[in-house]
Amino acid sequence: MKKIIQDALSGNIRAISRLVTLVESQSPDAKSIMQDIYPHTGHAHIIGVTGSPGAGKSTFCDRLVDEFLEQNKKVAVIAIDPSSPFTGGAILGDRLRMQHLALSQNVFIRSMGSRGSLGGVSAATWEASLIFDACGYDIILVETVGVGQSEIDIMKIADTVCLILTPGMGDDIQIMKAGIMEIADIFVINKCDREGAEKVASDVSAMLKMFTTNSWIPSVRLVSSYSNIGFAEVANDIFSHEAFLSNTPAGKNKLLDRAALEMEKLLLNDLSQKVSLLWKAKCSVELLEKLSCRKINPYLLTSEITNEILK
Amino acid sequence: MKKIIQDALSGNIRAISRLVTLVESQSPDAKSIMQDIYPHTGHAHIIGVTGSPGAGKSTFCDRLVDEFLEQNKKVAVIAIDPSSPFTGGAILGDRLRMQHLALSQNVFIRSMGSRGSLGGVSAATWEASLIFDACGYDIILVETVGVGQSEIDIMKIADTVCLILTPGMGDDIQIMKAGIMEIADIFVINKCDREGAEKVASDVSAMLKMFTTNSWIPSVRLVSSYSNIGFAEVANDIFSHEAFLSNTPAGKNKLLDRAALEMEKLLLNDLSQKVSLLWKAKCSVELLEKLSCRKINPYLLTSEITNEILK
Repeated sequence: MKKIIQDALSGNIRAISRLVTLVESQSPDAKSIMQDIYPHTGHAHIIGVTGSPGAGKSTFCDRLVDEFLEQNKKVAVIAIDPSSPFTGGAILGDRLRMQHLALSQNVFIRSMGSRGSLGGVSAATWEASLIFDACGYDIILVETVGVGQSEIDIMKIADTVCLILTPGMGDDIQIMKAGIMEIADIFVINKCDREGAEKVASDVSAMLKMFTTNSWIPSVRLVSSYSNIGFAEVANDIFSHEAFLSNTPAGKNKLLDRAALEMEKLLLNDLSQKVSLLWKAKCSVELLEKLSCRKINPYLLTSEITNEILK
Repeated sequence: MKKIIQDALSGNIRAISRLVTLVESQSPDAKSIMQDIYPHTGHAHIIGVTGSPGAGKSTFCDRLVDEFLEQNKKVAVIAIDPSSPFTGGAILGDRLRMQHLALSQNVFIRSMGSRGSLGGVSAATWEASLIFDACGYDIILVETVGVGQSEIDIMKIADTVCLILTPGMGDDIQIMKAGIMEIADIFVINKCDREGAEKVASDVSAMLKMFTTNSWIPSVRLVSSYSNIGFAEVANDIFSHEAFLSNTPAGKNKLLDRAALEMEKLLLNDLSQKVSLLWKAKCSVELLEKLSCRKINPYLLTSEITNEILK
């Protein structure tokens, strides 16, 4: 295992891939891998890319990666496909679309399937980005399909969040519902050659004025993945936001908040795994039948078990 | 508190509302409320309604509620609005749309805001439906906006899951991605007066043939909320599915699986709350600064804290 970690830290792609798989599958080695990897992290910038289905997130990522490659950055892309709880598999559409990038030595593309467990995807995504960070990637792009609570949780691990909107999709209300608006640092109006793009941009700018409690004022950029317009500007905004995080008190506070959130998640995750094991050991058909026909009160049983395991 | 619980159990709407609020806000009384309420549950049928944004879930629920009211059922509707992590508020669009129902004595409509915490909404939704169940509601409709991992978690508490599709939305691939397909018991093709509805229905039926490992074969129903077509059939399918759950070995197994899942969630939730409190007590700016600049390894700190609290 030490050998694999050493190889990964020196940039060996197969070793990196192996580590991510071990961590994602929650192998018994996962914890010690992360302990060893962690001291090497802290260099990469993590960019979250989100937006409604059909907003063109994958193509946007594709072009943004090209932009970073031109600047001689090493880029890792983590594409999150909520997997079927039934098959455990994932639909590879988004990944396939990015395939031309797979030819570059400086890009690593990884699909993550959600493990169906609460916090599963966001934990795995966070740990994969730590691995990429430790192994020398400068930029980590995390792309999530769709907008929802778990996507928001995933986006919270990012340093900079790009929200992709498109003209004429009625996106605005959906986004406000999902609460992603407040965590976006850069608003990207994709497909800007379509009618209505300027309108979306000005609507977003107007909305942002209502929410300016942050000292970072989110930028609003018109972009076209198809005509390759606006990507240098988005990359610039990302670097400005990176500077904001490290050089201003408000930015530093944001990083502290994130550290607190990460630590809480790690704790929860660790305990969740222990609780799941414990519950699997206790659980029997007889017990479930009693629960199912209300002969056992699950709230009382919970207190009993909690008292059993906590000091 | 005993008085409020008694009032709620005898059907007092203000008392029921109070209980749901106390439980949703995780008040110190929440646990004892649920312990007292639980023995009175087990009579209601919980129906989950989900689908992509724009599929017409709210109007569908609206009509379905009318259908149940005609059958003299008491119906509770839980509409889940992912709240803004920023404001804690929720957009009330869906709720407003259902307002005409609020005039009936036999309908109780409740909006749930997600509390931003992992598992927060699904726990609160589950507990609210237990309260409605105990307080004499026959049918509990849980409506979630959008499709995603947290929605899947919410749908797992339902006895019967209705998935709403519409013609011409390119829904199919989105749904397969989200894995909701496998947990749906009834497929509803809404807006069936639009072109392409029959095609969606036959596509879904064809897909279902690929997934028939369950002994319940999901029904596919064409419905129009606008013209009020197909709701009696959907209500019938729901009752057939209810009979399947209570009268067949496969149905009973499904209920046992759910009991196991609920129990595991209760345990996790209870521990999560304890861990959050503990972490808040331990967390200081100094500690966060050390974490943020990598002077403390969070993986080692996690082990330390876990060892501290577990027997």
